[in-house]
Amino acid sequence: MALTLQQIARLVQGELAGDGAIEIRGLAKIEEAGPGELTFLSNPKYFKHLDTTRASAVLIPAGLDSPSDRAVIRTANPYLAFLLVLREFSPPKALLPPGIHPTAVLGESVRLGRGVALGAHVVVGNGCRIGDDTVLMPGVVLGDDVSVGSHCVIHAQVSIRERVRVGDRVVIHDGTVVGSDGFGFVFEGGVYQKIPQTGTVVIEDDVEIGANTAIDRATLGETRIRKGVKLDNLIQIAHNCTIGEHSAIAAQAGISGSTQVGRLVRIGGQAGFAGHTTVGDSAIVGAQSGIDKDVPPGVMVSGSPAQSHREELRRQAATRQVPELLKEIKRLRQRIEALEKEIKKAC
Amino acid sequence: MALTLQQIARLVQGELAGDGAIEIRGLAKIEEAGPGELTFLSNPKYFKHLDTTRASAVLIPAGLDSPSDRAVIRTANPYLAFLLVLREFSPPKALLPPGIHPTAVLGESVRLGRGVALGAHVVVGNGCRIGDDTVLMPGVVLGDDVSVGSHCVIHAQVSIRERVRVGDRVVIHDGTVVGSDGFGFVFEGGVYQKIPQTGTVVIEDDVEIGANTAIDRATLGETRIRKGVKLDNLIQIAHNCTIGEHSAIAAQAGISGSTQVGRLVRIGGQAGFAGHTTVGDSAIVGAQSGIDKDVPPGVMVSGSPAQSHREELRRQAATRQVPELLKEIKRLRQRIEALEKEIKKAC
Amino acid sequence: MALTLQQIARLVQGELAGDGAIEIRGLAKIEEAGPGELTFLSNPKYFKHLDTTRASAVLIPAGLDSPSDRAVIRTANPYLAFLLVLREFSPPKALLPPGIHPTAVLGESVRLGRGVALGAHVVVGNGCRIGDDTVLMPGVVLGDDVSVGSHCVIHAQVSIRERVRVGDRVVIHDGTVVGSDGFGFVFEGGVYQKIPQTGTVVIEDDVEIGANTAIDRATLGETRIRKGVKLDNLIQIAHNCTIGEHSAIAAQAGISGSTQVGRLVRIGGQAGFAGHTTVGDSAIVGAQSGIDKDVPPGVMVSGSPAQSHREELRRQAATRQVPELLKEIKRLRQRIEALEKEIKKAC
Repeated sequence: MALTLQQIARLVQGELAGDGAIEIRGLAKIEEAGPGELTFLSNPKYFKHLDTTRASAVLIPAGLDSPSDRAVIRTANPYLAFLLVLREFSPPKALLPPGIHPTAVLGESVRLGRGVALGAHVVVGNGCRIGDDTVLMPGVVLGDDVSVGSHCVIHAQVSIRERVRVGDRVVIHDGTVVGSDGFGFVFEGGVYQKIPQTGTVVIEDDVEIGANTAIDRATLGETRIRKGVKLDNLIQIAHNCTIGEHSAIAAQAGISGSTQVGRLVRIGGQAGFAGHTTVGDSAIVGAQSGIDKDVPPGVMVSGSPAQSHREELRRQAATRQVPELLKEIKRLRQRIEALEKEIKKAC
Repeated sequence: MALTLQQIARLVQGELAGDGAIEIRGLAKIEEAGPGELTFLSNPKYFKHLDTTRASAVLIPAGLDSPSDRAVIRTANPYLAFLLVLREFSPPKALLPPGIHPTAVLGESVRLGRGVALGAHVVVGNGCRIGDDTVLMPGVVLGDDVSVGSHCVIHAQVSIRERVRVGDRVVIHDGTVVGSDGFGFVFEGGVYQKIPQTGTVVIEDDVEIGANTAIDRATLGETRIRKGVKLDNLIQIAHNCTIGEHSAIAAQAGISGSTQVGRLVRIGGQAGFAGHTTVGDSAIVGAQSGIDKDVPPGVMVSGSPAQSHREELRRQAATRQVPELLKEIKRLRQRIEALEKEIKKAC
Repeated sequence: MALTLQQIARLVQGELAGDGAIEIRGLAKIEEAGPGELTFLSNPKYFKHLDTTRASAVLIPAGLDSPSDRAVIRTANPYLAFLLVLREFSPPKALLPPGIHPTAVLGESVRLGRGVALGAHVVVGNGCRIGDDTVLMPGVVLGDDVSVGSHCVIHAQVSIRERVRVGDRVVIHDGTVVGSDGFGFVFEGGVYQKIPQTGTVVIEDDVEIGANTAIDRATLGETRIRKGVKLDNLIQIAHNCTIGEHSAIAAQAGISGSTQVGRLVRIGGQAGFAGHTTVGDSAIVGAQSGIDKDVPPGVMVSGSPAQSHREELRRQAATRQVPELLKEIKRLRQRIEALEKEIKKAC
């Protein structure tokens, strides 16, 4: 596949400086790009590479100068432009052709849509429903009565437990578990008694979930991951949580039981939650934060225990001054002692 | 299935106010319960729902007032009461019927108890023993010479490595790994040389382990998870650890090599351990703590590095005052300077 | 298998005190060792066991006294000596005999080296290449066009995604995922649009990776784990990271996108990275650190946000004094007030 620079400039609605007939056959990072490839500049840290890159053309920010002999396309957002071109060059490719691998095992009363692909050693429980064009990669296991919508990709060795419902256009990466029992026990008679986890998990449309993440079923009712949510790898979502529409959670964050996360929230990596808290719409939770109370809408919080990001930065700056403070207080004490002696002498 | 309120009041040893003939056919959270359903109130945060819930009856704390037209059952611990009823309504259900799926692969000299269920694509290594009524869900892999007791449920895609021993009534959720090599290397000749991990893991009776957790085998001897321990998802248990009886560990905690955790210990989510430390019986380790020295029995610790929870709360409160402190010290310095001038002038 | 103490003393280049004809048939920890077994003493905490151990002989540090009736071998590094003997006693044992299990599924154009072992239910995608004597344990899934070198052991249920390249003598423990999509989205039109992750992952020679770890493929180019790196369990390696030669990362650390880790770096458990940072050669990153800027070579950092370990220790010690500081400042204020009154009176 190849596109001319003129075609690319039109695609990204950018301004071309250079030969529009140049053919681009691939994309690469600026340090690695070679002849026939397009690259981009967005982070000023990398601007120095503009003179030396071997790329045939570069997407650059509007207003940035460039060597006269280098073909460039100027746009407001070169990274977004790069993404648009990248999509042209890498149309989603079927990971598996439609069809049921002979080693796949299907339970009773399974209903499959058109174009479904079931890989080697896939196991589909009794009563499952799978929508059109959905792909289950090798080793995926669906428990009984699971439903998966259409145009989903469930990667290798994902386990989706009994009765979980998954919407359309959902992507789940390898090794993730959806619907394991919530961590619910009561201490009674000197031992932990298990609280039956009789609820389920609902994953709405357009959700993407990373690798080796765990999402527990509700004790009663549902754990719910709403439309458009993006979850990274190795995340813990405990029983009875709700993650609101179009929220994004980075790797290794841990969302404790019954946490209610609003819409358009962003949660940093390794953040933790105390359980039964609420995070308002459009809030931002910093990486490694420890959330022990509700987060209001639109606020950025950080630290452990978390407070407003501004206060946390003040706290961090101030505590770094404490060693110096200890010395200053010693000096002040000495000056007060000197004054006390002088006063005594004077009076 | 249905129980009358009178039957339920007797079951939970509670005091019924309302019509004992009312039939309950299910349970739900107070916001979601409808006619024919029972719910409970325990957290004062939710008391406001008592007037508006559509539930047919509510388990409430002894001493709490209620609208006269609402059927309620008063008990000392409504949540525990709810649990007892929940168990009546959800008796443990077999996930798989007994029998060996034709796609399961069994090694040589395998001994299976009565009523064992092996799901699709299960792999059982040479010399394994599996006790009565134990269920291995699809895709479980047992290495050679593994023993699993009776009445266990090993969920999909769990890997139990060679020579690991698992007791009776153990539940292990999907994707968990038991018996991977400990992280043991010595730096020698400019590279890391592997220390053979020749020990094993022992999981005692009545243990439950969450999803995608990892428990490493010992370098020598055993990593041991004692009777009744409950582990959540995504936990790391390193080589040569012991977790004492009836201790509970929340998600994403990381227990480093040779840590000895006592009985009845509770460890919060994302807590970390420095290795070779000891946690005394009945200690409590707060979420996100960093344990770098022994924790005495019965103590609650938190913070990173961890200290007694009381001191940690004092430290947190105090450090939040540091920005104000900096200003106060500046003011004191000015007052001292003023005094020094006055003294000079006076004398 | 048995070795005499004389043979062992020669192997570890140590100095024997005791009967060289004593036969050793196994190794154990000092508390657990019995007759016929060898143990070692390295940590002074355990020196007290030297009088009471039932081991037939003990490897001890040069210069340490010992009871006259106990056979000992003195060496500079008893732990390393123990490791050398342990290796003699536990030569790497084949986990699977060479050959292809009848339930393994191979795609088209697969090339297998000599002595390859493919376990039950293994799935090998189209165009894969596997080197000599490599073992894929049960349930491993390789996507299309994966290459795995020679003498590798890929444990049960590992997923290696399309186009990933793995070197020679690599060990990957159970449940780990290599090559899942990086967490790359742009927020555009009110929703997250996926950035195609068209790159790959390269695992170089002599790498070992723990259980349930996740390594994402690059957006463009490669995520690269260089020669000799050791990764523990449950680690997140995001897209476009490079981990330098012979670096070691402990469990549950999270390396964010485009982080460049140098050679011989050591990273503690649960440490987190902000992304796009660089860690210099031979740096040490403490457990639970939060790295938000570049770490210079050879430096040890800790804390969150991380600073030099020395400053972090000073900060920790100082902040523990803040509660006392608050009281001291109150006292100083009172003394200043007293002085102010006296001055007023005096003048």
